[in-house]
Amino acid sequence: MVHDVSGPGVLKVFERLREQGIPVDRQDHFVPSADKISAENIVKLSNFTREYGIEKHFRYGMGQYGICHTLSHEEALVLPGQVYVGGDSHTNTTGALGAFACGLGHTDVAYVLLNGRIWFKVPETLYFQINGRLPDHVMAKDLILRIIGEIGTDGGAYRAMQFGGSGVENMSVEGRLTLTNMTTEAGAKNGIIEPDQKVYDYLDGRGAASYTPVHGDGDAEYARVYEYEAEELEPVVAEPFSPANISVVREAPSTPLDKAYIGSCTGAKMEDLEAAARVLKGKTVKIRTEVLPAAISIYKRAADSGLLKIFLDAGAVVGPPTCGACCGAHMGVLAKGEVCISTTNRNFPGRMGHVESRTYLASPQVTAASAVTGRITDPRDLD
Amino acid sequence: MVHDVSGPGVLKVFERLREQGIPVDRQDHFVPSADKISAENIVKLSNFTREYGIEKHFRYGMGQYGICHTLSHEEALVLPGQVYVGGDSHTNTTGALGAFACGLGHTDVAYVLLNGRIWFKVPETLYFQINGRLPDHVMAKDLILRIIGEIGTDGGAYRAMQFGGSGVENMSVEGRLTLTNMTTEAGAKNGIIEPDQKVYDYLDGRGAASYTPVHGDGDAEYARVYEYEAEELEPVVAEPFSPANISVVREAPSTPLDKAYIGSCTGAKMEDLEAAARVLKGKTVKIRTEVLPAAISIYKRAADSGLLKIFLDAGAVVGPPTCGACCGAHMGVLAKGEVCISTTNRNFPGRMGHVESRTYLASPQVTAASAVTGRITDPRDLD
Repeated sequence: MVHDVSGPGVLKVFERLREQGIPVDRQDHFVPSADKISAENIVKLSNFTREYGIEKHFRYGMGQYGICHTLSHEEALVLPGQVYVGGDSHTNTTGALGAFACGLGHTDVAYVLLNGRIWFKVPETLYFQINGRLPDHVMAKDLILRIIGEIGTDGGAYRAMQFGGSGVENMSVEGRLTLTNMTTEAGAKNGIIEPDQKVYDYLDGRGAASYTPVHGDGDAEYARVYEYEAEELEPVVAEPFSPANISVVREAPSTPLDKAYIGSCTGAKMEDLEAAARVLKGKTVKIRTEVLPAAISIYKRAADSGLLKIFLDAGAVVGPPTCGACCGAHMGVLAKGEVCISTTNRNFPGRMGHVESRTYLASPQVTAASAVTGRITDPRDLD
Repeated sequence: MVHDVSGPGVLKVFERLREQGIPVDRQDHFVPSADKISAENIVKLSNFTREYGIEKHFRYGMGQYGICHTLSHEEALVLPGQVYVGGDSHTNTTGALGAFACGLGHTDVAYVLLNGRIWFKVPETLYFQINGRLPDHVMAKDLILRIIGEIGTDGGAYRAMQFGGSGVENMSVEGRLTLTNMTTEAGAKNGIIEPDQKVYDYLDGRGAASYTPVHGDGDAEYARVYEYEAEELEPVVAEPFSPANISVVREAPSTPLDKAYIGSCTGAKMEDLEAAARVLKGKTVKIRTEVLPAAISIYKRAADSGLLKIFLDAGAVVGPPTCGACCGAHMGVLAKGEVCISTTNRNFPGRMGHVESRTYLASPQVTAASAVTGRITDPRDLD
């Protein structure tokens, strides 16, 4: 997978070495084109996919498209048992389907495009055993933020993070995708979850090609095992400027917020939007609130099921799928001093705009509740 | 009226002279904020409206907002008999409601904000008498492009362009707004239409304050009178690089297109979207197609009435209200060599992106039909 930001760099390497092509290519970060450079990048990728007959090219404004990591599961492009690499750090996401999924740099992706193979040192595995079932007001995002808060942003470095136990079995596929997506923020090589019937059903509904799932060995050794009781978890936020800087929402500072952002590969899947809509239904947002479904397929389902209407009636704006504001690229850049609560995955200085802006990471429920009050809010405390 | 692009310049002048404020202020061009500078501009305007107690401030992501000229009529901010000025060239738009509406530069707008008055030389009037009724496949956009093609981009310079006759009486208020909006492209000081019951009903439905309409003198002298038979008009396009460079669609060159854009104050009102949706219903777009309703109120009505579903099902993307791509600012900038058909109002070199991109201006029907075929297409020729 390459997208519109990493793609042109990959192609530069590729063109130097060109021999053969492999058919996966996507775009998302700077669509709709933010300027002449991003417009040119998109043309470059289109020329490349035409030249090499690459079929899986998702283009803004022409049917299905979206954030690359979201398309990877929405379009069943990555399947259990596969090794999948892409030119973006959150390529980890589809590990939730039982794939080894991992982000690479330009040169490595160009090498894979040319040769269809690459060298990996097999990582050690950290195993996260989740017991029970998340309460209604707690989401997968709260769990993974809690985990990153415990192990730190380098806690998974060079390692695989595997999630299992009844808490994961009870979790939807989209919830699991939030877990693996965020393993990047712990520095992990990849995140992975053993596929089960929920995954097979999810993929069946998306016309997946045939695949051979792989499972862990019963006697596998783990570098370390962590255990969490799902019922005991609380809604949390990651305060600026680290995904590991965790506070329980009810104990978080009462900072006035300027913006709430419900978007990205982490926080704008269908269930994320449904969770936000349950909170926003019949309410009015007090701060700038942006909702951007992560793919057109999700946008359509949100339109059909009345979610868009709930967002618009609450005063939020609904935008097209893009990575724009998540990485401070365009379409909602934060000004100096602005404070944002966001369903995205990173809150380093300047991530969403000005280096003196600040972002709190949270679940879609917490983000929606905070949009209504203008302050960081536990969804249970909203009337 | 000031918006997020002209506003900061106006405020710079204003602050130098500050004495008093007048309560109208809007934002639109670079929302969602395209970069740190536009984010900062929005903060500046927010601080200004807070400082001076300006109530009519429409903000992205907080309920109703949209393109400033669209809000002017959607929110009944400009009324028959009023003199209305704003820091944008298409301020002319609301002349269709029987106001004297006209765009000014930074210094003049700052002067108006301070003093509530300004000096005008009363312009001579060109009168455009339209007889009959436009055929279903011909829209107000075709009529005004035809007029500009005849009188040229300086044909209205320093003059008022007034529209009347049964063809205007038979036209909806939104159609009339397209006429006056485009008078800017003929260089006119303003465009104006005598208000009638349709206008009063339109405003009643939008909670307008009380107003005193004014009407032309029966014995008024016009600098020149032009006459058009509505039934004889054909769908047209303005070829690059001038709104006056008109061709009948069926005689237009068969250039392959890269993008169709249905947006802007000119071409994304409710009836524009309805017209495009009638063409796109059950069809699939062949080129990148972007639909951006001109205000949140229109976006909502389009969602409620199923138009958004038609656009999404056709493969188009639906975005939030913005001026972005119309002026090549962000959110859909054209790359070098790209060719666009657009419901917008300008196609000068570089207007929608790279100086070597090209834009054809057309009605929503022609733009939608061309999206389906990938070439400039008369809606009657679509199966």
